[in-house]
Amino acid sequence: MAFVGTFTGVTARAESRRGLLSTARPAVSSSASSFVAPSALKRASVAKHAGGMTMVEAADTVVPAPLLKQTGDDFKDMCINSIRFISIDGVEKANSGHPGMPMGMAPAAYTLFQNYMTFNPKNPNYVNRDRFVLSAGHGSMLIYSLLYLYGYDSVNMDDLKNFRQLGSRTPGHPENFETAGVEVTTGPLGQGVCNAVGIAMSEAHIAATYNKPGFDLVDNYTYAIMGDGCVMEGISGEACSLAGHLGLGKLIVLYDDNNISIDGNTDISFTEDVGKRYEAYGWQVIDVPNGNVDTDAIAKAIEDGKACTDKPTLIKVTTMIGFGSPNKSDSHDSHGAALGKDEVTATREYLGWEYPEFEVPQKALDHFRSKIDEGAEAEKAWNAKFAEYKSKFPELGAQFESCVLKGELPSGWEAELKAYGEGAKANATRKLSEASLQVLAKTIPNWVGGSADLAPSNLTIMEGYGDFQKATPEGRNLRFGVREHGMGAICNGIVLSGYNLLPYCATFFIFTDYMRASMRLAALSQVGVVYTMTHDSVALGEDGPTHQPIEHLASYRAMPNINMYRPADPVEVAAAYAVGVESRKTPTIIALTRQGTKKLENGSYEGAKKGAYVLSDNSSGGAADLCLIATGSEVDLIVDAAEELRKSGKTVRVVSMPCWERFELQDESYKQSVLPDAIPLIKRLSVEAMSSFGWAKYAGNQVSIDTFGASGPGPAVMKLFNMTVENVVAKASAL
Amino acid sequence: MAFVGTFTGVTARAESRRGLLSTARPAVSSSASSFVAPSALKRASVAKHAGGMTMVEAADTVVPAPLLKQTGDDFKDMCINSIRFISIDGVEKANSGHPGMPMGMAPAAYTLFQNYMTFNPKNPNYVNRDRFVLSAGHGSMLIYSLLYLYGYDSVNMDDLKNFRQLGSRTPGHPENFETAGVEVTTGPLGQGVCNAVGIAMSEAHIAATYNKPGFDLVDNYTYAIMGDGCVMEGISGEACSLAGHLGLGKLIVLYDDNNISIDGNTDISFTEDVGKRYEAYGWQVIDVPNGNVDTDAIAKAIEDGKACTDKPTLIKVTTMIGFGSPNKSDSHDSHGAALGKDEVTATREYLGWEYPEFEVPQKALDHFRSKIDEGAEAEKAWNAKFAEYKSKFPELGAQFESCVLKGELPSGWEAELKAYGEGAKANATRKLSEASLQVLAKTIPNWVGGSADLAPSNLTIMEGYGDFQKATPEGRNLRFGVREHGMGAICNGIVLSGYNLLPYCATFFIFTDYMRASMRLAALSQVGVVYTMTHDSVALGEDGPTHQPIEHLASYRAMPNINMYRPADPVEVAAAYAVGVESRKTPTIIALTRQGTKKLENGSYEGAKKGAYVLSDNSSGGAADLCLIATGSEVDLIVDAAEELRKSGKTVRVVSMPCWERFELQDESYKQSVLPDAIPLIKRLSVEAMSSFGWAKYAGNQVSIDTFGASGPGPAVMKLFNMTVENVVAKASAL
Repeated sequence: MAFVGTFTGVTARAESRRGLLSTARPAVSSSASSFVAPSALKRASVAKHAGGMTMVEAADTVVPAPLLKQTGDDFKDMCINSIRFISIDGVEKANSGHPGMPMGMAPAAYTLFQNYMTFNPKNPNYVNRDRFVLSAGHGSMLIYSLLYLYGYDSVNMDDLKNFRQLGSRTPGHPENFETAGVEVTTGPLGQGVCNAVGIAMSEAHIAATYNKPGFDLVDNYTYAIMGDGCVMEGISGEACSLAGHLGLGKLIVLYDDNNISIDGNTDISFTEDVGKRYEAYGWQVIDVPNGNVDTDAIAKAIEDGKACTDKPTLIKVTTMIGFGSPNKSDSHDSHGAALGKDEVTATREYLGWEYPEFEVPQKALDHFRSKIDEGAEAEKAWNAKFAEYKSKFPELGAQFESCVLKGELPSGWEAELKAYGEGAKANATRKLSEASLQVLAKTIPNWVGGSADLAPSNLTIMEGYGDFQKATPEGRNLRFGVREHGMGAICNGIVLSGYNLLPYCATFFIFTDYMRASMRLAALSQVGVVYTMTHDSVALGEDGPTHQPIEHLASYRAMPNINMYRPADPVEVAAAYAVGVESRKTPTIIALTRQGTKKLENGSYEGAKKGAYVLSDNSSGGAADLCLIATGSEVDLIVDAAEELRKSGKTVRVVSMPCWERFELQDESYKQSVLPDAIPLIKRLSVEAMSSFGWAKYAGNQVSIDTFGASGPGPAVMKLFNMTVENVVAKASAL
Repeated sequence: MAFVGTFTGVTARAESRRGLLSTARPAVSSSASSFVAPSALKRASVAKHAGGMTMVEAADTVVPAPLLKQTGDDFKDMCINSIRFISIDGVEKANSGHPGMPMGMAPAAYTLFQNYMTFNPKNPNYVNRDRFVLSAGHGSMLIYSLLYLYGYDSVNMDDLKNFRQLGSRTPGHPENFETAGVEVTTGPLGQGVCNAVGIAMSEAHIAATYNKPGFDLVDNYTYAIMGDGCVMEGISGEACSLAGHLGLGKLIVLYDDNNISIDGNTDISFTEDVGKRYEAYGWQVIDVPNGNVDTDAIAKAIEDGKACTDKPTLIKVTTMIGFGSPNKSDSHDSHGAALGKDEVTATREYLGWEYPEFEVPQKALDHFRSKIDEGAEAEKAWNAKFAEYKSKFPELGAQFESCVLKGELPSGWEAELKAYGEGAKANATRKLSEASLQVLAKTIPNWVGGSADLAPSNLTIMEGYGDFQKATPEGRNLRFGVREHGMGAICNGIVLSGYNLLPYCATFFIFTDYMRASMRLAALSQVGVVYTMTHDSVALGEDGPTHQPIEHLASYRAMPNINMYRPADPVEVAAAYAVGVESRKTPTIIALTRQGTKKLENGSYEGAKKGAYVLSDNSSGGAADLCLIATGSEVDLIVDAAEELRKSGKTVRVVSMPCWERFELQDESYKQSVLPDAIPLIKRLSVEAMSSFGWAKYAGNQVSIDTFGASGPGPAVMKLFNMTVENVVAKASAL
């Protein structure tokens, strides 16, 4: 059995892996050795009594105490320990959180922020700032510590003391919508580094589109810190493979290789060669064997990362989780819980930290805060450059200002989209989507997107707008490969890049299952991605039940803050895209048919934008005998069924309901105008080639499919599941 | 822009990549050259007129025609082409499907099945058979062709002719529940190879548990074919990294490296070094540069794979998609659509195939069918070995027979589980789950499982049953690492391994989003995995909205064939696990609290197994004034609220409803006994700290959470969202 016990001593293997002894520079060794001895003795003693599986043999064997080695530069240590102890104290006060990662990565984070990152604490949205993503979001106190120390207004001392408390700006995991300076919402592992790929893609695209000789309007770097968990998640492999393919030279990821995850030592499940894997992806890989102390090596690695312009860089920073904690470092014990009062005291003693909780030495704080002026200067210089750019390139400058800086939509985009929908002939809604995408491509310059290797099926190519490839990042068609989850997270990054790009992405509707975690994060972090999801029901036919959505509409209707559209015809498809474009803080899924549909006689653009509307009603007082409600391709069924039913003398209301969420946003009188109480639930029939789940709210009766689908030609499958006019008429007649 | 056009000629690069010219062995070249010339001329001519982006210059330049090189062994070519043309004809008749992969991989599949795999066509369930997984499930005609040719009863000529038709045993993608001989359901990319990892883990575990010196009861290999799509999907990276860690020497995966995906040439999105990546995972990687013709190299690679006992093997078989089709090979055109009548004719001509559609030369068929006797002999020999084993090791032999062969559950397991539940004290339901797992570990020897690196939080370790590691595959605790999606697919493979193992797996409930595609495949392919999902509501507290499920219960309640349990106390937790264990064809999710819960006074094991039951009712005639319904931790709320409401003179029915799906399976009279029509919807209130979505079916009013959660201590968050007795009383009083 692999060694999984709490680390209370120093195994030769762990020691060697971390390179704590072998790689320390002479200056560090001598500096550190001056205050090693007493605690080293103490530490060995602790090890002896703690019952660890492998330990230093005896208290009287004086072992060099690697935990005590700091950088050898007293002031640098003070700054790094400022980050460590704010993180420690924040977690301690909350009695909840993850101190270990910030303790281990404080030297790397300090080196990065202090010496390499350009940012303006007083304007977190400065457009050419370097971006930082904490992919290992559980280490949130690291970013909160940095934001506080560098003088962001979003995190003050009270926020630090209210870590993980209701209403604070320092929630358990970083949330972009709560805390300025937090670029993306992280926590679910692997997502952040993929967001970073999306941000770096955005930078490359905007730079290629707007930069001119002598005018590097946009030239920032995207940095991320990820941990073992991020690396293990498949999503990160997807996006990082694509990042390598695209040669994103301005993406630099620090991998906190601390050998510890929640189950204990990663030896029990994760022994692959990560560096080699990233080389296989086409990345530059740089090892920093002793990230606990060797800030020079960290600095050199970042510089080498910046120097490599045609590949992303992975810096493998080998650290000890919980560095500085004599009894909990290098152990899962320091990962996800407060260290505890005694251990905090012991850690203060170990690191020679004489300051009370939450106190930062003024000298260090002044040093951190010097970045405020530096950042303001950087932005000022950029503003001057942009003014000159505008005068030299007035048209492009105006576009940059409007589209990139302000995120404005060009006038006329919606009129053109609506006109297209109203003028278009019937077709499969995926074909109508394809045409809508051409309109948007033409009218909105920052509209970009693509498919996870289903472009010829999803019909998502914007003709004439080029592919985003390594040599052509100005291309607006994104080629994600068969990487749905990575695609979802990349699109979140594109939205949150700060360049106001509007991305759409696509796969078969069923394969939203592969990217659901990213879609939920879009909804949670208020990110207006548009999801073009074709092949939206069993009517897709032959591919069979592995490819036929059943529960998918319901599963997204249940999710907060996401528009689930299923349009029926050209007008409704155009309306769905319009909502998607306008909804900058709400993602929009558009489910589209493989098969042909009719054009509705009374299809309404405005009605579809409102989520539901009346297509026809042959009653006089608004209290029809029956109400038929459907979405997408099944609207054709209820239109035809109503005609049949009316022949037998019934009054029937026909409602198209492409988006429940939008309907729920309307006022009560509108809702009553569509689904009046005068037609009780038992007189309403919903028709959808999908699970009935959730429909009970709007209709007491359903024509639906509550089992998995079947392989066969589409029309035969629809008939098999009774998705026919005859069946709708029969069911409705029986009400 | 990368070259993505239809392949109508031979680019030097593609040629070099495939090694068609450079690696053909002399024997092959000379043999093939005897019938190259005329068609080569013709082919060049075709290229000239097809308008491809890069093409052979002119018809009068005689170019060696690589498409025509076959293996050089006429009989072998006949057998391989039998596979090719059944696949071509099946897709053609259906006018739907994927001919390209079977055409390219026929040589590899033939070599594998004919020369290396042990199987018994007349008993597809022969326990020690080698397993084969077609991870690239879209190439389903390949496996159907093989099953037909080797004489499986499950696929006859009519089935081949009814490919992708309703009710056939040859659906669009392979489905284990439709077609004997198909081990797992594939199609959604990446899943199959992960299933194969699970199968190989099962083999290793069963072998370590039961094999004795001289008695290798179980020693089969697991083979898989995956394509570029499978390799790109993150899920495959997760499972293959774990497979490398575990050193699964009996897992051999053939990677169909054909450079084509749906968007065109993989150059546009997928240029990583796959072999190097798999080496980084700890795999042996073997290149077969010319998989189109070089069956000797394929054979050698398989042998080398078998010889390497401590690592899984990836055989990178470079092929040309649609091999043999003069105008559609090496192009996405042969990937996902019928070749078309003319091209089928051209392909017949190219490959010298003189037989009409669906006809297999008798000589070839006899050859394939010889495996019937061979397989029967193998099973007979195994039966004899097992008889001897039983006599030497009667206890273990009996256990193997009962647990592994018959899949019986040992007597007494449920009585012990129920007794535990009824005797246990209140606790967080995740703690009660932990205790239930110990009971199951003790009573069911084939109960195995673990967590995606959250064992200390999910509380899923079976104490005393060891870790499954490379050196200890007999261990029953699985350490998945932070790989939820891989975990889900591996568990599907474990169930479908044919060894009747019963797996559970675990993560936080929210992270089912990462593994949803695998869970859906469990439901679809009738696989009884148990999902132990802790931290099931906003009450988990500080981790905040990224970790707090809202829509998750609804999203699984909407999915067909999956039990969504949310038990409230020890009795219900035990009942949920009992249903999970019994439901061999339906997966079961058990959502569990982080926080403490009370023990219900009238908690009913049988009631919980039925999905819903009455906890209390102070009315006389069964028509209480109000009915309160809840699940999990909120049952405590309605119990207390009912007490308050009754004080004010109301009659109140209190219903615990841990599993909707099980409730719906009960007969009408039972359902009425729990939720009688006498209490109308408007008098019913559901209480669940989760989305209200779907509840309208059972209750007209909800106390629910229809937004994302918040970070703060659990009780504070519950209060913030009005999950209090006071609020339930107020809401109920207003009805």
